[in-house]
Amino acid sequence: MVTQIESARKGIVTEEVQGIADMEGLSPDFVRRRVAEGSIVVARNNSREGGVRPLGIGEGLRTKVNANIGTSPEICNVDLEIRKARVAVEAGTDTIMDLSTGGDIDEVRRFLLEAAPVAFGTVPIYQAAIHAREKKGAIIHMTEDDMFNSIEKHVKDGVDFITVHCGVTKESVDSTIRQKRLLGIVSRGGTFLAAWIKHNNRENPLYENFDYLLEIAKKYDVTLSLGDGLRPGCIHDATDSPQIQELIILAGLVERARKAGVQTMIEGPGHIPLDQIDANVKLEKSICKNAPFYVLGPIVTDVAPGYDHIVGAIGGAVAAIAGADFLCYVTPAEHIALPSVEDVREGVVVTKIAAHTADLVKRREERKWDYEMSKARAELDWEKQFKMALDKEIIQRIRREREPRKVPQVCTMCGEYCAIKLLKQYVHAEH
Amino acid sequence: MVTQIESARKGIVTEEVQGIADMEGLSPDFVRRRVAEGSIVVARNNSREGGVRPLGIGEGLRTKVNANIGTSPEICNVDLEIRKARVAVEAGTDTIMDLSTGGDIDEVRRFLLEAAPVAFGTVPIYQAAIHAREKKGAIIHMTEDDMFNSIEKHVKDGVDFITVHCGVTKESVDSTIRQKRLLGIVSRGGTFLAAWIKHNNRENPLYENFDYLLEIAKKYDVTLSLGDGLRPGCIHDATDSPQIQELIILAGLVERARKAGVQTMIEGPGHIPLDQIDANVKLEKSICKNAPFYVLGPIVTDVAPGYDHIVGAIGGAVAAIAGADFLCYVTPAEHIALPSVEDVREGVVVTKIAAHTADLVKRREERKWDYEMSKARAELDWEKQFKMALDKEIIQRIRREREPRKVPQVCTMCGEYCAIKLLKQYVHAEH
Repeated sequence: MVTQIESARKGIVTEEVQGIADMEGLSPDFVRRRVAEGSIVVARNNSREGGVRPLGIGEGLRTKVNANIGTSPEICNVDLEIRKARVAVEAGTDTIMDLSTGGDIDEVRRFLLEAAPVAFGTVPIYQAAIHAREKKGAIIHMTEDDMFNSIEKHVKDGVDFITVHCGVTKESVDSTIRQKRLLGIVSRGGTFLAAWIKHNNRENPLYENFDYLLEIAKKYDVTLSLGDGLRPGCIHDATDSPQIQELIILAGLVERARKAGVQTMIEGPGHIPLDQIDANVKLEKSICKNAPFYVLGPIVTDVAPGYDHIVGAIGGAVAAIAGADFLCYVTPAEHIALPSVEDVREGVVVTKIAAHTADLVKRREERKWDYEMSKARAELDWEKQFKMALDKEIIQRIRREREPRKVPQVCTMCGEYCAIKLLKQYVHAEH
Repeated sequence: MVTQIESARKGIVTEEVQGIADMEGLSPDFVRRRVAEGSIVVARNNSREGGVRPLGIGEGLRTKVNANIGTSPEICNVDLEIRKARVAVEAGTDTIMDLSTGGDIDEVRRFLLEAAPVAFGTVPIYQAAIHAREKKGAIIHMTEDDMFNSIEKHVKDGVDFITVHCGVTKESVDSTIRQKRLLGIVSRGGTFLAAWIKHNNRENPLYENFDYLLEIAKKYDVTLSLGDGLRPGCIHDATDSPQIQELIILAGLVERARKAGVQTMIEGPGHIPLDQIDANVKLEKSICKNAPFYVLGPIVTDVAPGYDHIVGAIGGAVAAIAGADFLCYVTPAEHIALPSVEDVREGVVVTKIAAHTADLVKRREERKWDYEMSKARAELDWEKQFKMALDKEIIQRIRREREPRKVPQVCTMCGEYCAIKLLKQYVHAEH
């Protein structure tokens, strides 16, 4: 079985690379060269069924958006998660990650894979930990086999990319403990592994047996999303030594994966103050030799629970413009609860806005959309504005609720004193 | 009557400067020196009644937030606007601008001045134009007297700062027409004046008789907010020659105002792509000799009506970190309708978030808030999280709706697999 990165290196434009080039308006050879060097990944399990379009993530492509969904031990309802998946796809998410930790995790994953015809990711360590908790009383009793069995099960189901926290090692965990962070470790996978490492006084099997992980990934051409299990969980802890130590470990694994013909991307924080985002992105790109960078938010202040989708959009836009390739959404429920269906929709829309604000700078051709919307505004053409709006529902709802009664073509903000209307009447008419 | 800037130059720490220094945690002499040089303005009409606290806007101070409210010809309800003012103040706006263009504008302004015990601004040209429209059939029939009478009326009522579009001149308007912008002029005041200039073939009286304007402003120590009447109205038009030409005109007026002992700030766009915000702010600071910069949004994409408060928060955060001092909010209704009470609240909260994300970088002491919130998270102390949240209502509502039933101290996102809980149990317990 030849993987995408191997084909690309041989100069072959695969069907997937061709598809990505078409979707992104780029030359197939441009995409192929970047896949070959690892700066673009093709998120596509070679056994995934159901006619899912391949997705490219990386340098020179449109910034992609991920929506995390999934059950928890507290709220476990498969139908609810299926609805979230559908709403996320409708709202335009590029990928879905199933982070389920409640109920029959295998069943949830399989339902969601079917419901979401987009690139699909999971975090297999969750299931291994939960299995250990349920069968052996505690997550620290999971075995190395539990971990790899869970990974194999997920990739066999057709999952396109998996988060693996290979950089959570004895050394990096000890460094994190010494750092005396305010919020310690906030990644679930990172915590599971840190607890396991400390309790069992053993090295992380995903690190120690990385070659075995590469074998599994290669077989299905699954992209490894190298997780930042030690990402800081608040502004106070941002960009500290343990975070960067882990990044350096992941950089080494990127090189090993590329040699083995396995695609990788790097996950990044998390909580970062605005002025450190650019440095974080540049650092990742440099140390990890342009591996696609997948950031969570970033969250640029800790004080606004209920609005963390907006906080994440601020950070995400700044990260994307600095070169981040893939934004994991944050929903209004972040830090408070499992997101609702409405939270999922809101999270996707807002993160897509963040991505587009960067894309119109990174890829000038994306401005055509802004141009067309503004042209519709200049023409006071409301139907075209509805059509061009990123969210077609909300503009129509607000317009309908507050339609002008005196001067129909304007809006209730300025009424007859609409600048656009007056300009036509007085300034342009004089010419 | 000695103005704040004159007192400051004489080395006098006024009561207002002392108040600002106390509020901002700065030395009175630091504030005084910046008021003297014009990089901080004291937004305070010397005849304003009602015990309103003076507000400082400028370099080294917390980034301030403005909420625009006011009637329109289409939606004209004084009580509604009073509710908006109250909600904006409750949500923590630093200033209110009354942009009323409907009904009895004098009455609305006086009610709002009373309802909003914060620094208060208006755009007097609106009333002059509406008066001309109502009494003489068209805004182009307004007279120079109409313009100055309206200004005098507003400052006599106690308005603390006024937007005056002095940079909309024969030359800059012609330059804008030659530019063949997609959206021409989108500032209402800018359009009123451009229409007037073109129709009457006369120079802008606010520019031509700037000295008279300075006399009026000086008498009440009103801050002139030099409006960017020619600001671009879409990404396509951003940062063009007419915009910068107007900025250069305003820079000249800043110097004249400072000589006359009148405080000024500069208004900025509007629609700017993310990568040009920093340049816009630095340009203003350099050309206008560090006059406080008051930006609208900025809006970093045109395609998301219904979400322009979020688009503006992205732009506002980036502008504030680049040095913008004052963010005018944008509401979800922007480009669609006059904002509702709920839109006003949302606009203020989101803009305050944008301001804080920059402030925690610009003023390191502001991080204390983020620290305390994160400490509450680390302790799984929900009561303290409610107390520390920027919006206390929403966190409690989400928490209440989705309270965990199995493990009370965690949340429904992770349930018993809460990283913070596990970390305490396994990682820190081992030490």
